[in-house]
Amino acid sequence: MSKGRLEAFSDGVMAIIITIMVLELRAPEDGTLEALRPLLPKFLSYVLSFVYLGIYWNNHHHLLQAAKQVNGPILWANLHLLFWLSLIPFVTAWTGENSFSTIPVTLYGGVLWLSGLAYYILARALISHHGQDSVLAKAIGKDSKGIRSLYIYSAAILLAFVAPWIATGLYIFVAIMWLIPDRRIENKLTGQDAYE
Amino acid sequence: MSKGRLEAFSDGVMAIIITIMVLELRAPEDGTLEALRPLLPKFLSYVLSFVYLGIYWNNHHHLLQAAKQVNGPILWANLHLLFWLSLIPFVTAWTGENSFSTIPVTLYGGVLWLSGLAYYILARALISHHGQDSVLAKAIGKDSKGIRSLYIYSAAILLAFVAPWIATGLYIFVAIMWLIPDRRIENKLTGQDAYE
Amino acid sequence: MSKGRLEAFSDGVMAIIITIMVLELRAPEDGTLEALRPLLPKFLSYVLSFVYLGIYWNNHHHLLQAAKQVNGPILWANLHLLFWLSLIPFVTAWTGENSFSTIPVTLYGGVLWLSGLAYYILARALISHHGQDSVLAKAIGKDSKGIRSLYIYSAAILLAFVAPWIATGLYIFVAIMWLIPDRRIENKLTGQDAYE
Amino acid sequence: MSKGRLEAFSDGVMAIIITIMVLELRAPEDGTLEALRPLLPKFLSYVLSFVYLGIYWNNHHHLLQAAKQVNGPILWANLHLLFWLSLIPFVTAWTGENSFSTIPVTLYGGVLWLSGLAYYILARALISHHGQDSVLAKAIGKDSKGIRSLYIYSAAILLAFVAPWIATGLYIFVAIMWLIPDRRIENKLTGQDAYE
Repeated sequence: MSKGRLEAFSDGVMAIIITIMVLELRAPEDGTLEALRPLLPKFLSYVLSFVYLGIYWNNHHHLLQAAKQVNGPILWANLHLLFWLSLIPFVTAWTGENSFSTIPVTLYGGVLWLSGLAYYILARALISHHGQDSVLAKAIGKDSKGIRSLYIYSAAILLAFVAPWIATGLYIFVAIMWLIPDRRIENKLTGQDAYE
Repeated sequence: MSKGRLEAFSDGVMAIIITIMVLELRAPEDGTLEALRPLLPKFLSYVLSFVYLGIYWNNHHHLLQAAKQVNGPILWANLHLLFWLSLIPFVTAWTGENSFSTIPVTLYGGVLWLSGLAYYILARALISHHGQDSVLAKAIGKDSKGIRSLYIYSAAILLAFVAPWIATGLYIFVAIMWLIPDRRIENKLTGQDAYE
Repeated sequence: MSKGRLEAFSDGVMAIIITIMVLELRAPEDGTLEALRPLLPKFLSYVLSFVYLGIYWNNHHHLLQAAKQVNGPILWANLHLLFWLSLIPFVTAWTGENSFSTIPVTLYGGVLWLSGLAYYILARALISHHGQDSVLAKAIGKDSKGIRSLYIYSAAILLAFVAPWIATGLYIFVAIMWLIPDRRIENKLTGQDAYE
Repeated sequence: MSKGRLEAFSDGVMAIIITIMVLELRAPEDGTLEALRPLLPKFLSYVLSFVYLGIYWNNHHHLLQAAKQVNGPILWANLHLLFWLSLIPFVTAWTGENSFSTIPVTLYGGVLWLSGLAYYILARALISHHGQDSVLAKAIGKDSKGIRSLYIYSAAILLAFVAPWIATGLYIFVAIMWLIPDRRIENKLTGQDAYE
């Protein structure tokens, strides 16, 4: 089964998710700078979520590039990832509307955690289909960055009850950690070593 | 006539349908867990509809993969399917807002029924274009799973007047029945038998 | 310049236009059949617009299939067409909300008229790029069906002031006239005659 | 790394941005011409933004056509461009709702300025990946049109405090300046001189 439509559908869904979040930034009635101020937390949560979705699209792009073909379980592992990503606009809006208070920030972390897990499952499904000796399996390796992210999200969710800005800071930290695209796969594909 | 743009357009429409449903999950003003509780039925109807649209995308993917080319009637049979699928966000919102009460659940079943019929018509249009001896025709066969689904939807619509949760349970049952992608087509394409 | 991205972008825009119209069908608060009744004109205007957008997608598909390459003016003629199509959700909502009263029906016709003109301009731009002797030019021919549609829209807009249902009837009539995909192009491409 | 998915994802995002702006044109309750009048500034801001997004899509199309492959920094430079473009619906709605008053017009210019800068960065990232002697580098050249646009936007933002219509006029002027697709790249690709 070819991977073309899976890529096209995922691109479509991720493009829509990344774009409809902006609908939450409703234009205020007054045309003054003061009228913009209440939108600031919404804007910041939009920026964070835009970056996260950019990271997911980027990594998804790299992951599928190394894949040769897909099967039924991979299609569903992919839809499972898209499901959690589709909830990002909701938690983004809730976090922004409540100025990054504890419960919304916790739920935001929960959706990040489940998205991260879903990505991990998708990577495993791809490896199990391509074999442990495939280029893809070697390129993904143990996915220690993905596992580390889940640990950090867990810590962030707990620390949100101490102070929500610590959790938010950790989400930003993970985003920065991922901003560099997945060099492991790129290296393997171009035959370079992946010692990093 | 090549099938590429039909696939691309259908992917686009299905990606949008699956994603705009989440716009119905409006972020509550309060940042508390209690504020989330009224959203629970909306969330459950979203999950069910997400799974259904995932199933349709999956089966559509398999169906078109077996197809070699398309013609005018196939284009319209496909648009007819997309029309009924496009009503799923509406019935999802209505069902969620009314906590799965009788009339909305009935209408939800009606849209599922008509989507199922439209998929059946699309499959027939593809078979009639490719010939009864084509790989596609053999792969689809009598489509007994599709026909069985229509019977179960009919029963569900009637039983919704007894108790709407029975109908909802039947919708979930059909979804589980379909979660496994259409192995018939996959088997035929890879030359394996389809005795299952 | 290849036509691939023009097709992909147009598919995307048309897929979104056709789908966001459904957002106007807001789920009523009550879960009763009576609560659905006020939605009926909105639903009917949705059906009509869905069919029109399906026709445009279909004809666009046929038109571009006969095209070999595109240039700057063609890109802009295409964006011009997409602009008028993008106003269809607005006039659909307005017509539905006002139960097909005169002024909304007139504006609906105006948008159809301008979309029809834009399609005609796009077809001319494609012919002028491919040459009068190209397969495309012969396939499109004089586009008498397109010109006839513009005349009928004009009549409908005037007759809307007598009775808006006459105009609506004429829009439905034109839609039925177009429901059959553009056989002229299909015939030319497959080498058959186009005597019809 | 192939450029196919980058193009597909960008097409998707730009198609959605260009289309969701129309959701701001909410159908008035009354079916009269007077009811449409308050929508006029919203419609005008929609037209301007539609043209700008058309220009960006057009130029993006030309830019990527000349590109052979992409890398990590290019993916992020592209997402950075899409981020600023995604704010256009917001500033369009705000400008329209406030009938082109000073502060919204200034912010509109700010988003145009940052989009222009992001496009410039993307072009530089592409050149640095393909080499100074590549067809792409020669085709883009010094991108004097892009730099000139940034100067005009800067002037417009300042002049908005004198009179917002001057700024709006300058935005329209830049749009007209760009309406002609990027002939430099087209010429280089077809081997013609680019003396203009």
